[in-house]
Amino acid sequence: VQTDDPVPAVFFLSDFGTADEFVGIVHSVLHSRAPGVPVIDLGHEVPPYDVAAGASMLVRCAPYLSPGVVLAVVDPGVGSGRRGVAIETIGTGPSWLVGPDNGLLVPMARALGGVQRAVVLRRSPPTGSGERTESAGEARGRTFDGRDLFAPVAARLVLGAPPEELGDEVDPETLVTAAGTAVIAARDVTPGPGLEAPVTWIDRFGNIQIEAGPDMLDRIGVDRGSRALVTLPGPPCRSAPARRVDVFDDLDAGELGLLVDSSGRLALACCRASAADHLGSPVVGETVRIAPDEQGEAPA
Amino acid sequence: VQTDDPVPAVFFLSDFGTADEFVGIVHSVLHSRAPGVPVIDLGHEVPPYDVAAGASMLVRCAPYLSPGVVLAVVDPGVGSGRRGVAIETIGTGPSWLVGPDNGLLVPMARALGGVQRAVVLRRSPPTGSGERTESAGEARGRTFDGRDLFAPVAARLVLGAPPEELGDEVDPETLVTAAGTAVIAARDVTPGPGLEAPVTWIDRFGNIQIEAGPDMLDRIGVDRGSRALVTLPGPPCRSAPARRVDVFDDLDAGELGLLVDSSGRLALACCRASAADHLGSPVVGETVRIAPDEQGEAPA
Amino acid sequence: VQTDDPVPAVFFLSDFGTADEFVGIVHSVLHSRAPGVPVIDLGHEVPPYDVAAGASMLVRCAPYLSPGVVLAVVDPGVGSGRRGVAIETIGTGPSWLVGPDNGLLVPMARALGGVQRAVVLRRSPPTGSGERTESAGEARGRTFDGRDLFAPVAARLVLGAPPEELGDEVDPETLVTAAGTAVIAARDVTPGPGLEAPVTWIDRFGNIQIEAGPDMLDRIGVDRGSRALVTLPGPPCRSAPARRVDVFDDLDAGELGLLVDSSGRLALACCRASAADHLGSPVVGETVRIAPDEQGEAPA
Repeated sequence: VQTDDPVPAVFFLSDFGTADEFVGIVHSVLHSRAPGVPVIDLGHEVPPYDVAAGASMLVRCAPYLSPGVVLAVVDPGVGSGRRGVAIETIGTGPSWLVGPDNGLLVPMARALGGVQRAVVLRRSPPTGSGERTESAGEARGRTFDGRDLFAPVAARLVLGAPPEELGDEVDPETLVTAAGTAVIAARDVTPGPGLEAPVTWIDRFGNIQIEAGPDMLDRIGVDRGSRALVTLPGPPCRSAPARRVDVFDDLDAGELGLLVDSSGRLALACCRASAADHLGSPVVGETVRIAPDEQGEAPA
Repeated sequence: VQTDDPVPAVFFLSDFGTADEFVGIVHSVLHSRAPGVPVIDLGHEVPPYDVAAGASMLVRCAPYLSPGVVLAVVDPGVGSGRRGVAIETIGTGPSWLVGPDNGLLVPMARALGGVQRAVVLRRSPPTGSGERTESAGEARGRTFDGRDLFAPVAARLVLGAPPEELGDEVDPETLVTAAGTAVIAARDVTPGPGLEAPVTWIDRFGNIQIEAGPDMLDRIGVDRGSRALVTLPGPPCRSAPARRVDVFDDLDAGELGLLVDSSGRLALACCRASAADHLGSPVVGETVRIAPDEQGEAPA
Repeated sequence: VQTDDPVPAVFFLSDFGTADEFVGIVHSVLHSRAPGVPVIDLGHEVPPYDVAAGASMLVRCAPYLSPGVVLAVVDPGVGSGRRGVAIETIGTGPSWLVGPDNGLLVPMARALGGVQRAVVLRRSPPTGSGERTESAGEARGRTFDGRDLFAPVAARLVLGAPPEELGDEVDPETLVTAAGTAVIAARDVTPGPGLEAPVTWIDRFGNIQIEAGPDMLDRIGVDRGSRALVTLPGPPCRSAPARRVDVFDDLDAGELGLLVDSSGRLALACCRASAADHLGSPVVGETVRIAPDEQGEAPA
């Protein structure tokens, strides 16, 4: 059954968690409206209401998704005046992103090549094949657009429906482009040399990703094998020496490292241990300072 | 490959959690016996042994499932005298529910339109295409009917096998209809006006669903925009004012709300925060009292 | 669409957890390179870096997997000198196991019938249909072989690609066969009768599996219905009486039992409660001693 043509899929991300049936119900709605279309879960443990964390996760996923539709729901404003949107992207990968217009989707659209077109969704969900008649549905609250609006829209789009069926095109400039506080870019600190960047992600393994690329480390003279001093000004202030390496196993037990992670960003890491534990549990958004270590090169 | 005909699926719910391989093994058994049939996970984080919580979750899922078979396993009595059953439903949606006869399935069957037929499963699991020969299997314990009995039966039924192949028909009246203590319906309290209803569900977001519909609120004069006093008699007794709204975002920060949730039931909720935290962590089954607030209408 | 031929699948196990997007990205890579091939998650909550726990989980899964490829990633040494391998198995079930050469895969290969052939993977990942062009990919770190190497290899193998395309055959004797400390087999203790065996698994329900089969219990005279004394020498030393039964429901509330679990191994269990809680939270690897109880047979 395999061919060389990509098979469109729905890529699904949310803050629904897995304790409840929210994810399963959305899968069921997708299945009944777009039977046979693969649905790939990108993750459902985005912290509740944390639009910025969801947006970051989508950006990290972007390079690895094939053609299809992204269905993303982190939606504290569900039922309020916030708009529901479908955003068409430029370039390869998924061609449509569907979800609330609250800053969740635009960063991913940009990572995929940019916004081609934006459609504000009509409140009445689309109908389609495989749908169950649901006369009782009208009595239900307006608190689950993932189920009632975004999943049906994603199903229509992945089947190739024209977007005019779903809502009205709007100026992409009107889309909400970012969630919460703007991400502060990495910057040089004075007196230098040194850099300062916010924590962007702490993963299951305790690796601490920061908003900086390896070029920033190069610029302050922390080459491969060099030592640096890592400081979280806090409060409380925490500090630890680190060594720039390529992979976790280059580090000794109990040693902190700086490496390029699988997203191409800088991360603080330990070998078979949690860098977050090592550094006193930093949080996303907290500032990290990195400076070359006075004591020079690491011993071979 | 899409057509207008619904594609039968297996909908799978359990208390297996995801730390172990139980869910994966059941998926593998379903795949080998019914290859190509979609399997949709409704949820596997039902608290261990909590048949009533599993039954509630199935009822909430019922309106959103398409044709196929529900495989549900919350089964503290596995291997004991409790029967395994397949229940045929009346109406649209899934046509068969498979699992232990312990009160897990009947509430969902009723939500789907009622019980058409009940079959008590034979202990020897059915065989079918794709099965691996397992001579060692006989040495294993009788503690995993999800794998050894219910999944094979679900696979046969979703492929259209006749139920006579799987066991003997019994009088549906003999089925266990409810788990644990009966759910207490909402009721008016005296002196009124006021209502009293048990907590039925606390979701990931801390929303507190109660066993009452919006009509009960109407009856005690708590209309949209009106204020109410919510009391959990405890012990300890906890109390907080609340406002009836439509969606989370109608609420101010730190304010408690009463709204119709996505199941059409009443829920206590906050805006971008946990109502369960707000109200001192109530538990499922605990009583909630709601009365109109003496102080009258909310400010505009 | 169902036939009698098994449909090859990819069976996926890791220590990635579900808080991040790692699992979703691997699914996406598999989908784009082997569209239409079912991917079955065996579990992703293996404790971080715990190769031995992952190996045990794979062994327990082995009897229930159908033809296809196992993709297993518990890989603390990613990017280091450790080899990536594809192991061809003898017998039925999955024909290839793909992952790091760190002891994760060989125990499962043996459980499936033995190693037929071993291939050390080339660092450059294979290409195939459905792949996205990723010029930016070269800038990313070498810390995610699950995405960059093992998933692409698993996709090629499940599509029937010749292993020569993926790397060079090596002597299976060179494979790392076990992770961490060797598992100690159950043994008789003196003065007897009694047996001693390590804890191998504590599941979600608190059942404590030990590295012994029911024959060991038979040999020390603990037949069905007999009582035994279970001791964890610790420190701290913990001890409790237990009764040998067939299923959980044979036990009284608060009683500890010994039964044959769904893997065919001995387990300590309680009825609708956690044996791990009952016994003071033992850990995997801890020794359990079992001796016939002086007080003889259990009351009827």
